[in-house]
Amino acid sequence: MNRKLSLEELNRLSLNEYKKTKKFPVVVVLDNLRSLNNVGSFFRTCDAFKIEKMYLTGITGCPPNKEIYKTALGAENAVEWEYHENVYELASELQKKGYEIVLFEHTKQSILLRDYHPKPPTALFFGNEVQGITESLLTLADFCVEIPQYGTKHSLNVAVSGGIAIYYVVDNLKNHS
Amino acid sequence: MNRKLSLEELNRLSLNEYKKTKKFPVVVVLDNLRSLNNVGSFFRTCDAFKIEKMYLTGITGCPPNKEIYKTALGAENAVEWEYHENVYELASELQKKGYEIVLFEHTKQSILLRDYHPKPPTALFFGNEVQGITESLLTLADFCVEIPQYGTKHSLNVAVSGGIAIYYVVDNLKNHS
Repeated sequence: MNRKLSLEELNRLSLNEYKKTKKFPVVVVLDNLRSLNNVGSFFRTCDAFKIEKMYLTGITGCPPNKEIYKTALGAENAVEWEYHENVYELASELQKKGYEIVLFEHTKQSILLRDYHPKPPTALFFGNEVQGITESLLTLADFCVEIPQYGTKHSLNVAVSGGIAIYYVVDNLKNHS
Repeated sequence: MNRKLSLEELNRLSLNEYKKTKKFPVVVVLDNLRSLNNVGSFFRTCDAFKIEKMYLTGITGCPPNKEIYKTALGAENAVEWEYHENVYELASELQKKGYEIVLFEHTKQSILLRDYHPKPPTALFFGNEVQGITESLLTLADFCVEIPQYGTKHSLNVAVSGGIAIYYVVDNLKNHS
């Protein structure tokens, strides 16, 4: 008979197991996010999808923080993270290390998510809730990627966009490589 | 040269245009959600992906509501919605109308998201933040679907799961039908 799985049956990792487990060759960069709620949500998503590292930049709030904890629920202790003040310098460094620079932004040259095929290592950038991605990053980008949207609002919530994009990339790496 | 698109260039619909535009044959059911923040986020996602209708059930809060507005940002005025007290009765009604009943829940018989191929009309159910899907729905379900997760936490935030699932279903309907 069909029934829900218990927490034990889900085989989730302990914090120690998680630290040692192999991650996907993907990093997530939060470019000047203003909402701590969104930052917490990204931690929880990056934990679920075994992301290598999160980079918090500019005005993005960092753990430990009560508001981040409210949505991260402890995932901020599992996922490795680092703060960088300047997102452009960080992007240049990542590019020099061989990461493809992927900005989630609607631009003149952006491609649809389904047409983007990650070639890791990959750095996924998500921008400020109002301003979007920091303008200067456009000159460095390997890809600008957009999630097609058909409604009345300017864009999805950034943490929801992040979930869609990170799931897509990890699913791609697991199943097409 | 690459540059961000202006709001005008994004060609978003006005509220009136949205009401008249053809939606995807997909409804979203919020099964006893307790967080108004999550409810608001679902409105914004359902607006972006032209979902036919949202059903709010049980303890799920309804618009107009200041907390819902904070994350929905007006999308709650675009998306059609209806409140039902009893989620099981609603599911039975939808099934009688021909909707496939799809529960996002980890169960003994759940399939992975990438193995689920929607045959519309489709009703997507998302459960309470702590309890998950209402147990009695399991007997009605055509599919239980899970988003594969590899981390320490029990599950993704429900609004993020919703984003991933709704994007996946709409992308499938647009590109494989």
